[in-house]
Amino acid sequence: MDIVFLFYDRMTALDAVGPHEVLSRLPGATIHRVAKQAGSIRTDSGLTLIANSPLSTISRADVLLVPGAGNATTLRDHPEILEWVRKIDKTTTWTTSVCTGSLILGAAGILSGVRATTHWAVFDRLKPLGAIPTHGRVIEDGKILTAAGVSAGIDMALQLAAKLAGVPFAQAVQLGIEYDPAPMFDVGSPEKADPAIREALRARMLAKFEDFK
Amino acid sequence: MDIVFLFYDRMTALDAVGPHEVLSRLPGATIHRVAKQAGSIRTDSGLTLIANSPLSTISRADVLLVPGAGNATTLRDHPEILEWVRKIDKTTTWTTSVCTGSLILGAAGILSGVRATTHWAVFDRLKPLGAIPTHGRVIEDGKILTAAGVSAGIDMALQLAAKLAGVPFAQAVQLGIEYDPAPMFDVGSPEKADPAIREALRARMLAKFEDFK
Repeated sequence: MDIVFLFYDRMTALDAVGPHEVLSRLPGATIHRVAKQAGSIRTDSGLTLIANSPLSTISRADVLLVPGAGNATTLRDHPEILEWVRKIDKTTTWTTSVCTGSLILGAAGILSGVRATTHWAVFDRLKPLGAIPTHGRVIEDGKILTAAGVSAGIDMALQLAAKLAGVPFAQAVQLGIEYDPAPMFDVGSPEKADPAIREALRARMLAKFEDFK
Repeated sequence: MDIVFLFYDRMTALDAVGPHEVLSRLPGATIHRVAKQAGSIRTDSGLTLIANSPLSTISRADVLLVPGAGNATTLRDHPEILEWVRKIDKTTTWTTSVCTGSLILGAAGILSGVRATTHWAVFDRLKPLGAIPTHGRVIEDGKILTAAGVSAGIDMALQLAAKLAGVPFAQAVQLGIEYDPAPMFDVGSPEKADPAIREALRARMLAKFEDFK
């Protein structure tokens, strides 16, 4: 089973690394970390990850995962990446995204009529891309799995692991990464957050996603 | 404010990347990703991260974070890393660990009489290192913050962010990474997990931590 992570400059590290921690444990899975060019990928938090393969060497995937970015509009300047996403999606059993990665799927044209989610702050950017914006931490529609913001990728990957390798396996991975979350505050979604904090954050993020109007 | 992440070969990527996603957003923070040598660090899931600075260039930290590894005994072969941890700890405001990173703090000799936690499967490895094993997702004792397994680093980092930059800031980061966890199964701790899954996993992990007996 080939699980392909798309990496790109200024992506959000945790969007990819959360699911990677889960999916890399799947028995018999080969993980490909793929970017326009192999080598260093500087994420939007300054951490550098290494992509092992250039896009040109990967022509199919069982699972494709597209992470998001604080400013996913950067991918608008790389139509060859969007073209590659469109091509790989035709071969997948599961096409998945985390956070604003779904806007990249949408920009690639593969969310037409598909129920999907994204980071809450840019939720209204889904509709112009043809998707059916759907609230939820993980949204499944056919073979498309989209996760909400950043940390939701962990929930999505565990759900996918259950589909790919069975519930006991997914539960063992969840226990292995001790995913029994207990945040000190219960403010991780827009409904639960302080409105002032939420609107300041929304304005800051939306400003970076003008292109996706 | 200097926040120093220790990187080392075969570390667990998510142990570091979860907190990195949180702490890198702190205003005025400089993040250092430090390893024995600068350059490629292959994590235990196959993902390669880049360390920017060698240990020799970092002599102090406001915050030190030590991630764990599926097999943290690898650090037993690198006494100079343990020596560096011991030296940096003397300069910190907060010394922190995720998962089996606390066993590294213990091996460095800085958990004597300190209440601490670690990954549930190797919990009994804390006592021989002088620590007071304490159950909890995040344990604070003086300036030492230890988190439970892998994903607990996110909870720890948000708690630390509240201390360093205030509660509203920490809440904004939590909302920014949409940390409103909703795992499909509620099996992420040993108490909640299926006993057969738990004991199989415990045996497998313990076998890798013989040195810490």
